[in-house]
Amino acid sequence: MIITLKKTAPEEEVQKLIKRFENMDLQVTMIYGANYNVFGLVGDTSKVDEKNISANPIVTNVQRVAQPYKLANRMFHPEDTIVDVDGIKIGGKNIVLIAGPCSVEGEDQIVRIAKEVKEAGANMLRGGAYKPRTSPYAFQGLGTEGVLDLVKARDLTGLPIVSELMSVDKLDEFVKNVDIIQIGARNMQNFDLLKAVGRTKKPVLLKRGLCNTIEEWIMAAEYIMAEGNPNVIFCERGIRTFETYTRNTLDLAVIPIIKERTHLPIIIDPSHAAGDYKLIESLSLAAIAAGADGLIIEVHDEPENAWSDGAQSLKPSKFNDLVAKGKAIAHVIGRSLG
Amino acid sequence: MIITLKKTAPEEEVQKLIKRFENMDLQVTMIYGANYNVFGLVGDTSKVDEKNISANPIVTNVQRVAQPYKLANRMFHPEDTIVDVDGIKIGGKNIVLIAGPCSVEGEDQIVRIAKEVKEAGANMLRGGAYKPRTSPYAFQGLGTEGVLDLVKARDLTGLPIVSELMSVDKLDEFVKNVDIIQIGARNMQNFDLLKAVGRTKKPVLLKRGLCNTIEEWIMAAEYIMAEGNPNVIFCERGIRTFETYTRNTLDLAVIPIIKERTHLPIIIDPSHAAGDYKLIESLSLAAIAAGADGLIIEVHDEPENAWSDGAQSLKPSKFNDLVAKGKAIAHVIGRSLG
Amino acid sequence: MIITLKKTAPEEEVQKLIKRFENMDLQVTMIYGANYNVFGLVGDTSKVDEKNISANPIVTNVQRVAQPYKLANRMFHPEDTIVDVDGIKIGGKNIVLIAGPCSVEGEDQIVRIAKEVKEAGANMLRGGAYKPRTSPYAFQGLGTEGVLDLVKARDLTGLPIVSELMSVDKLDEFVKNVDIIQIGARNMQNFDLLKAVGRTKKPVLLKRGLCNTIEEWIMAAEYIMAEGNPNVIFCERGIRTFETYTRNTLDLAVIPIIKERTHLPIIIDPSHAAGDYKLIESLSLAAIAAGADGLIIEVHDEPENAWSDGAQSLKPSKFNDLVAKGKAIAHVIGRSLG
Amino acid sequence: MIITLKKTAPEEEVQKLIKRFENMDLQVTMIYGANYNVFGLVGDTSKVDEKNISANPIVTNVQRVAQPYKLANRMFHPEDTIVDVDGIKIGGKNIVLIAGPCSVEGEDQIVRIAKEVKEAGANMLRGGAYKPRTSPYAFQGLGTEGVLDLVKARDLTGLPIVSELMSVDKLDEFVKNVDIIQIGARNMQNFDLLKAVGRTKKPVLLKRGLCNTIEEWIMAAEYIMAEGNPNVIFCERGIRTFETYTRNTLDLAVIPIIKERTHLPIIIDPSHAAGDYKLIESLSLAAIAAGADGLIIEVHDEPENAWSDGAQSLKPSKFNDLVAKGKAIAHVIGRSLG
Repeated sequence: MIITLKKTAPEEEVQKLIKRFENMDLQVTMIYGANYNVFGLVGDTSKVDEKNISANPIVTNVQRVAQPYKLANRMFHPEDTIVDVDGIKIGGKNIVLIAGPCSVEGEDQIVRIAKEVKEAGANMLRGGAYKPRTSPYAFQGLGTEGVLDLVKARDLTGLPIVSELMSVDKLDEFVKNVDIIQIGARNMQNFDLLKAVGRTKKPVLLKRGLCNTIEEWIMAAEYIMAEGNPNVIFCERGIRTFETYTRNTLDLAVIPIIKERTHLPIIIDPSHAAGDYKLIESLSLAAIAAGADGLIIEVHDEPENAWSDGAQSLKPSKFNDLVAKGKAIAHVIGRSLG
Repeated sequence: MIITLKKTAPEEEVQKLIKRFENMDLQVTMIYGANYNVFGLVGDTSKVDEKNISANPIVTNVQRVAQPYKLANRMFHPEDTIVDVDGIKIGGKNIVLIAGPCSVEGEDQIVRIAKEVKEAGANMLRGGAYKPRTSPYAFQGLGTEGVLDLVKARDLTGLPIVSELMSVDKLDEFVKNVDIIQIGARNMQNFDLLKAVGRTKKPVLLKRGLCNTIEEWIMAAEYIMAEGNPNVIFCERGIRTFETYTRNTLDLAVIPIIKERTHLPIIIDPSHAAGDYKLIESLSLAAIAAGADGLIIEVHDEPENAWSDGAQSLKPSKFNDLVAKGKAIAHVIGRSLG
Repeated sequence: MIITLKKTAPEEEVQKLIKRFENMDLQVTMIYGANYNVFGLVGDTSKVDEKNISANPIVTNVQRVAQPYKLANRMFHPEDTIVDVDGIKIGGKNIVLIAGPCSVEGEDQIVRIAKEVKEAGANMLRGGAYKPRTSPYAFQGLGTEGVLDLVKARDLTGLPIVSELMSVDKLDEFVKNVDIIQIGARNMQNFDLLKAVGRTKKPVLLKRGLCNTIEEWIMAAEYIMAEGNPNVIFCERGIRTFETYTRNTLDLAVIPIIKERTHLPIIIDPSHAAGDYKLIESLSLAAIAAGADGLIIEVHDEPENAWSDGAQSLKPSKFNDLVAKGKAIAHVIGRSLG
Repeated sequence: MIITLKKTAPEEEVQKLIKRFENMDLQVTMIYGANYNVFGLVGDTSKVDEKNISANPIVTNVQRVAQPYKLANRMFHPEDTIVDVDGIKIGGKNIVLIAGPCSVEGEDQIVRIAKEVKEAGANMLRGGAYKPRTSPYAFQGLGTEGVLDLVKARDLTGLPIVSELMSVDKLDEFVKNVDIIQIGARNMQNFDLLKAVGRTKKPVLLKRGLCNTIEEWIMAAEYIMAEGNPNVIFCERGIRTFETYTRNTLDLAVIPIIKERTHLPIIIDPSHAAGDYKLIESLSLAAIAAGADGLIIEVHDEPENAWSDGAQSLKPSKFNDLVAKGKAIAHVIGRSLG
């Protein structure tokens, strides 16, 4: 940790600060500059709170050198983590393909779509039973009934299921029934929910918050891992920017960054990022080329009658086309899709 | 609701869409332009999902005319709502002054600071017992002990207490003990939590999410009100932008906007917006001048030893200065502070 | 154009507004809703200024239906525009590959790097002679000498050259010497500069501004085209967001959007978006997969001694690897690279 | 400057880097940590390019300690700079009040409005003769005629005039005729234009770019000052964020920040930030309370017929009200307005 001090700081105050750090078993190296002096702190600085150090009027800046995350940090875990979901590996050579409707609308609908996406090459099924909606007057999901419909679809197709958990009180239902628990963008810093899924061993799909930095996102994974669950899969779904043409801005640079900084797999959700079915194919192929470990795509057989997110849902025929092109790109980079 | 259609849309598809709207008891007016045709829909469009309409390939754009919120909407409730907290009115002539430390650190600390802020003119006490922290390794709050320490401080000073609720399972504890339940920025779209506080009658301080639009924020209030609780107080605490000099960017334009669009009071939190004690006074005075109904400010007697947020906490003496200036400005705009 | 009026608007004011539009040869259709009335305007609304209409106190909202751009609009020009640069076509089947150093540092350097990028497969050379630098104390480019060095490199390698024009008074120098005039991100709305290059026939590489919307970007192209120059090539180079891990956030969704909305080619600059050489390969391959018409990449043989932008420059060997992978991906989507 | 190195960096590479810095007359202090080593560089690091240092594969991070600006830096110039404009002082006890229409629309209009704003208390007149417009089809300003109309208005009212310069070739016209040269937000990093106004002695009103950081803004001032012109006045006019309710988000925290970091005055433009006349009064009063050295406000006697920016223009009567309230607030903080 690097602390910049005013040149005018009274020596007494500087000594007090040095003593404080020495009491924390940190070694202090002082660098004297023309306009500022600088402390370099060596040792376990994870307990030092930058904001409190900044509160000291003699301090002008505090900068961490080491990353604040440990369990997710590739530095201490150089090999890739591969998450196993009922035999399907996320994070290896294969690129996982998750598809399905935004919302489960009933058993018929989810089974029908599950069969279609399976035939097109998907190896997992997505579907929302509990839906975070901006408006209290919008459809809020079928709840438990929706979860059971997903289970039916899995029974009939063999596709593992991914669904979003919105509150701790449904955790048991999810542990019992779903294969991957999704934490949505709006809950990325719902720390009680993160700790709760951390106490299970279920794979967790951790979506990036709409305006969360990469470091905050990794720290959210760290919350889950610190409770004992190592099965975290990152999912980029677009961030909020000034551009309103798309629903969000898909940040594909996170793929090489997450892979450099952590050992965890990362998949891409082009549907929520784009908010427009016409953009999904381009963004999906881009994600594969950039090195993503998977895609999660909204597919609906009647988007114009979907109960939610119709505008960004692909029809099965378009999804088919996308998969064919995606397979070809995966192949030339030495991987396979779906 | 205004729907723009491609000029090339097949008449059959257009008729299908017209029929669909007529079945929803909506009247359709068609406007024929050179390059586009436009539908104007009249009637209760609150059930029409824009995203599904957009999914129709003949549609190029969907635009709402009416606001999606009703209970919070000033159009249907022209008088200001004044929230009563143990006799202190939020939303009237008086500007409420809430102050206290970021975290409760123990009974002595919270009682000591409560007395100091009361003497300086505060009329409510803030303090976090459950703390949302980016790192799982950072101090997470004293929990129930912290809540009880706040109660002690209230008993001794008479100041009503405001504290943040992070999960539904602590709701009873908060209903029993605190006077205003704070919903933090990270939980602004934790819809289960919003519904839960909506089922109580406790005043709710609803912070704006780091990257939530004003409309999303009002919709979050609507979630609480739709469950039966009309006592919502908005709190702006800065939004996330590209500027990193400050922790967040305080958006004071929300004060006249919230007052035009809704009938609910709005207070300002300059501490979290700035992240730097040196900026608090300027932003607080600005908020008063702009018409805020209150301020919530972090005050700590030893910021450099605070367990959290030291960098943005004011010492009591500086808080005193701020209050004196704030009172003078409040006075010239016909209000009073604290 | 759709104009929303307050239901309470006095009839007299409404009639005044109707007359005003009729005087502009616009037809007005009125839609009566419960809480708002709506005008639909049909005719040439390009002269109507939304902001002035909004200034009328009876108006609550103004919304355009038609795009404000004409010459760039695919609706009026359905075929792809292919820009010809000395025989190299931008916008067709081939994906153009532009590479070279951030700054021209002298004849030896630019000739040496030109030969290396040519050998690796590049078909154009980039290099800055006039450099927009945040600091007045940083290297500002070699100026005319740099332009002449580029010309030497072209003479020796046959690669057409791309360089950034920063002010109108160097226009003649650029028209005479360079093959594509680059308008940098910071000058995307330097309208005098846009008009000036619009009065030439030189191909213009129009970078997106750091915080400009897609519509503003297209309008900047419209400025150039309105002066008579149809040879505009869009170049996405990342937008500014809250995320600071990367220099900017690359927005690849613009590829399908620009292609849907306009008939102009679009290329991608991963170097400025990422600001980090380690991310360039992933983003370049993603851009190809997403349908980009070209790439512009910074290559330097000694990045750690580069006079500018070393951190984001690829060494020739890494550029070689990237090109090999890029060719494979281009091939499977039916295109060729370089 | 602080440079973080990989622990695994080969000693030979580390020594090469040390030698490089020593050759630049910098002293290097090495701090050995568990996972990283750190260099502290002491001496004149203004010539060290962070980006090139980052290009070295053994380096993981580079951080400046000292600010990159010198002439604008309060550290080297502790007293406030007061800019004198024909006897009106900007930066002292008085808060300057600049008002007028967005565009000059003719002599009658500008003279009429000049008289009205003068009577209301303004002490300078604003008006655009050259207008940066998003669309090439929108009104581009009256040009030289507009400048001469402003001169007439000054002759008749005595109000000094502020107008925007968009290109270097009009510099002489502006030096001769206007009292403050405005550099607009879109040109904040048009470095040739900054250098050109830096070679005059005219006061320069430097607007913050739509997405420029505070540091970039100060560096733009440094460009002007480095050419010899010390008369720079900062002007905040809102930044671009995800929020679209307002045209931009006004960032009032810049007032105390600019005053802490630099010795230059800062004024606020609420009109462009808000984009909506209904918000101007709140934001103006907030700016005064926060310590601004001036306001620049758009006033038009017929906003609904204004040739540009009608929606954000105040009518003279509303401007009058605002000035009365502003004077009262200025008074209680020991300043005077207008």
